[in-house]
Amino acid sequence: MPTQEDLVPLQGWRRKLYIIIFEADTRTGRLFDLAVIVTIILSLLTVTLESVASIRARWGVELKALDWLFTVFFTIEYTLRLLCVHKPLRYARSFFGVVDLLAILPLYLALFVPESRFLADIRVLRLLRIFRILKMTRYMGEARELRRAMLASRRKITVFLASVMMLVIILGTLMYVIEGDEHGFTSIPTSIYWAIVTLTTVGFGDITPKTPLGQALASVVMITGYAIIAVPTGIVTAEIARNSLKHPDHESGTRLCPHCFTEGHDWDALYCKHCGGKLPRPAKDVVS
Amino acid sequence: MPTQEDLVPLQGWRRKLYIIIFEADTRTGRLFDLAVIVTIILSLLTVTLESVASIRARWGVELKALDWLFTVFFTIEYTLRLLCVHKPLRYARSFFGVVDLLAILPLYLALFVPESRFLADIRVLRLLRIFRILKMTRYMGEARELRRAMLASRRKITVFLASVMMLVIILGTLMYVIEGDEHGFTSIPTSIYWAIVTLTTVGFGDITPKTPLGQALASVVMITGYAIIAVPTGIVTAEIARNSLKHPDHESGTRLCPHCFTEGHDWDALYCKHCGGKLPRPAKDVVS
Amino acid sequence: MPTQEDLVPLQGWRRKLYIIIFEADTRTGRLFDLAVIVTIILSLLTVTLESVASIRARWGVELKALDWLFTVFFTIEYTLRLLCVHKPLRYARSFFGVVDLLAILPLYLALFVPESRFLADIRVLRLLRIFRILKMTRYMGEARELRRAMLASRRKITVFLASVMMLVIILGTLMYVIEGDEHGFTSIPTSIYWAIVTLTTVGFGDITPKTPLGQALASVVMITGYAIIAVPTGIVTAEIARNSLKHPDHESGTRLCPHCFTEGHDWDALYCKHCGGKLPRPAKDVVS
Amino acid sequence: MPTQEDLVPLQGWRRKLYIIIFEADTRTGRLFDLAVIVTIILSLLTVTLESVASIRARWGVELKALDWLFTVFFTIEYTLRLLCVHKPLRYARSFFGVVDLLAILPLYLALFVPESRFLADIRVLRLLRIFRILKMTRYMGEARELRRAMLASRRKITVFLASVMMLVIILGTLMYVIEGDEHGFTSIPTSIYWAIVTLTTVGFGDITPKTPLGQALASVVMITGYAIIAVPTGIVTAEIARNSLKHPDHESGTRLCPHCFTEGHDWDALYCKHCGGKLPRPAKDVVS
Repeated sequence: MPTQEDLVPLQGWRRKLYIIIFEADTRTGRLFDLAVIVTIILSLLTVTLESVASIRARWGVELKALDWLFTVFFTIEYTLRLLCVHKPLRYARSFFGVVDLLAILPLYLALFVPESRFLADIRVLRLLRIFRILKMTRYMGEARELRRAMLASRRKITVFLASVMMLVIILGTLMYVIEGDEHGFTSIPTSIYWAIVTLTTVGFGDITPKTPLGQALASVVMITGYAIIAVPTGIVTAEIARNSLKHPDHESGTRLCPHCFTEGHDWDALYCKHCGGKLPRPAKDVVS
Repeated sequence: MPTQEDLVPLQGWRRKLYIIIFEADTRTGRLFDLAVIVTIILSLLTVTLESVASIRARWGVELKALDWLFTVFFTIEYTLRLLCVHKPLRYARSFFGVVDLLAILPLYLALFVPESRFLADIRVLRLLRIFRILKMTRYMGEARELRRAMLASRRKITVFLASVMMLVIILGTLMYVIEGDEHGFTSIPTSIYWAIVTLTTVGFGDITPKTPLGQALASVVMITGYAIIAVPTGIVTAEIARNSLKHPDHESGTRLCPHCFTEGHDWDALYCKHCGGKLPRPAKDVVS
Repeated sequence: MPTQEDLVPLQGWRRKLYIIIFEADTRTGRLFDLAVIVTIILSLLTVTLESVASIRARWGVELKALDWLFTVFFTIEYTLRLLCVHKPLRYARSFFGVVDLLAILPLYLALFVPESRFLADIRVLRLLRIFRILKMTRYMGEARELRRAMLASRRKITVFLASVMMLVIILGTLMYVIEGDEHGFTSIPTSIYWAIVTLTTVGFGDITPKTPLGQALASVVMITGYAIIAVPTGIVTAEIARNSLKHPDHESGTRLCPHCFTEGHDWDALYCKHCGGKLPRPAKDVVS
Repeated sequence: MPTQEDLVPLQGWRRKLYIIIFEADTRTGRLFDLAVIVTIILSLLTVTLESVASIRARWGVELKALDWLFTVFFTIEYTLRLLCVHKPLRYARSFFGVVDLLAILPLYLALFVPESRFLADIRVLRLLRIFRILKMTRYMGEARELRRAMLASRRKITVFLASVMMLVIILGTLMYVIEGDEHGFTSIPTSIYWAIVTLTTVGFGDITPKTPLGQALASVVMITGYAIIAVPTGIVTAEIARNSLKHPDHESGTRLCPHCFTEGHDWDALYCKHCGGKLPRPAKDVVS
């Protein structure tokens, strides 16, 4: 996502508009943001209720009307965003830019593919803005930490998923050969689906082994799944643990550099990792 | 919850009553507490048995009678608590005050809404007092530690749950569009319910995808759930691990060397591992 | 379990017998032990096969005969153990003593309660002896470590299970009131059973909520279960992690005291915790 | 698996062939490898599609033809590998040697046992070569680390699985005695299968307890499973955590301070946290 700065237009009505739509510091800006959020939630409700047959039967017309109302509103908003931004294309390509577009497309698409209308629920992603608006910097921090933990262990998880996929293909094929058509294992894809359902301990029970041999293999699959569910947990846990050990006091506020005021220094750091200035001694209980 | 001190009345029969009802140190106090606990358990049994059709058919009247008996008892107890406390309002607003009230309301409510009678099971919360009464300070300690671990990671968990909710809404909508009415995905709320059932690896199997595309998406959902179940675990584990690393001997009590005053000796250690001096015998229950 | 020493008889045929039956060092001792193990496994197979209707139909008589044969063999063995041990009562009260008794009772009980015959499977516990016989000291070590991790966190787990039980009772009652009889929630005990099935993410699907409100509550239950499954994992993991951090080289052999030859000293220990003698410096990579 | 060196023939056409088939550095070698991979994936698709009744009905003949085509191709490849390797037998006994053989057997077997044809999916294992070909050394490293974590905790896991097996046998027997034939617990093996399904929290729901006593025991089983699922997780996590604590920066590469030569700086550090000296820029892909 591009930094806000590049997006700010230089002056005039566009700048005013920009501050109202994109900034959340001014009163009008905050009001606008809240209005948008309320509209999003209402539109989500509309789509959701519309999907319930009994309700659609009674309020179908009204809901459809509302649906269009919201979509028009979002379309205008999107156009304004494009107008008041300094570099429209960059905004359009940014994460929120794409989401904002996706939020209005479905209904127009629905003119050709009725079903697609419900995809409007993608709007829920727009709520991610809440974090920015409510200035939940701490939450953002946590989110960043989680994302980093994920990123740091992405390679391990890739390796893990790759092996799981192979395992699942082989197990699925075996079950297909053992149980066969008459017991619900109608094809290898179906059997692979079953293997995934079982290995992930979801166990719908829509397909289950009937033959003793099949049940025996299934048992092996389950115990295996039981053992390897430990792996992704282990990976992520180790990652998070390492972070929280690095910043053992990230709960009680992090160490602040008195020179450049950057936070998040290791508890054993002597110099600021940003400006190189000397750091004050950490709190006693931190060294533990 | 307010500190007991503020609740103690200054003198007279109220003070006597207070000591019997609220304190657990005196013999009468302990007896009273045990009486209450026994009554709670019995009343829980009554309500539970009453809900079993076959039993209600035969003992309905007796059970109902008992039910009323217990409720009256609890009502009297609640009134006494209010009477003998120094600041009744503060007690009424405290956690246990609210629980004590909730424990008697259902049956009175049942005069108007019969079903609500079973809500009397909320009384189970009153058993939390057991901890206080049995003076299980150690357990209290553990509980506090767990609660702190939870609290410390509440923000991470909030972020996590928020993303899960969004994920579930989008997945539910997709499945509704893909599978549609005829395969049990009757509405978006139902599909979201299915998505939660699947992502949490509960997998009731009351609703299952039938179309190949649906099963493919379901597989993705399950593998995802498999991967992200790691996150909350990682969060809490890291938290607990950090605590237990900070207090590496919180289980066997911090054994102190009388010679060099270093801590953290194993429960089976005979000599200080730092100065080699003889260690005092550990507490009995530690060896377990 | 009593130490072997107290059980060894002083001399004569009883001592000879003792060495054959209880010791595993002599050739005859090892042979006897293996014979017992083989017999146990065979008897387990007999009982298991006997439970399969189709097999019982054809081989019922033979299997029953075998069953009796094994039971007689175990009875004789048990009597011999009692005879040759120095303190029979102490053996009889020891873990393996009780198991050995339980292994022979079922069939005799079956004379009065036919069904109970299958309980003979309890014999599987006798296989625990394998560990001792195969002298899998390392495995014993691992087992001990696991058991200690469990023991160390038993209090936390108790607190956790207690809260889960309360949660489950309340949730079960709520679901019973919401869904009621017609949707399978026939009684509070059944609803509690459902709550456990759901909270533990097992999700049989034999009972499932039908009303929107019920499904909403169920969703909350599942997300909760999803979040709190983290707790026991966190507890045990932290425990094991602490151990393996204490003994970072428990894989590459533990530090040995040159004076009293005891193992398992912390990597930062300077003196033996058993005899107080000076310890050699640990391997470099251990300190890491 | 033998080291490549021993397999390289000394000279001549065999050496040329060897470099093409086994090496991945030369252009031709890489091309050959990619060709093989594409063929494997295509053949997997063939087998999979062939298993879908509707597709087999229409394209059965064509798919079968393709199937044979691929098998012949793999057979030739396998023969060539045998020919150009210096020590054919050693290659044949190596992991990939066995996989390569297994990849071609099924179809020939199918001449006698039609069903076995689908086992050709075992070919998926050949894809493991991808790792080697794409020179994903980093991934190999991760994989190695995961494998080591598994190996390091194999003994703990063995102990764990052994106890689970015993537990499952006893629980299965109990449920068989309690629920009996009429409730789906038709035999002890079936009950053991149920116990595994339940303990691993898979919960198919194809067999479920009906009697109150059975449901009570099932609840205990589930809570137990809930508690002990923590153990394997704990074991593996602790193992991985220990590794990642030993190599705290194995993700971002060990950044070294050029002034004081201390390691383990955060990927976003600009100055050494020990001596305050300027740090060189981190590798690009680290920031990710």
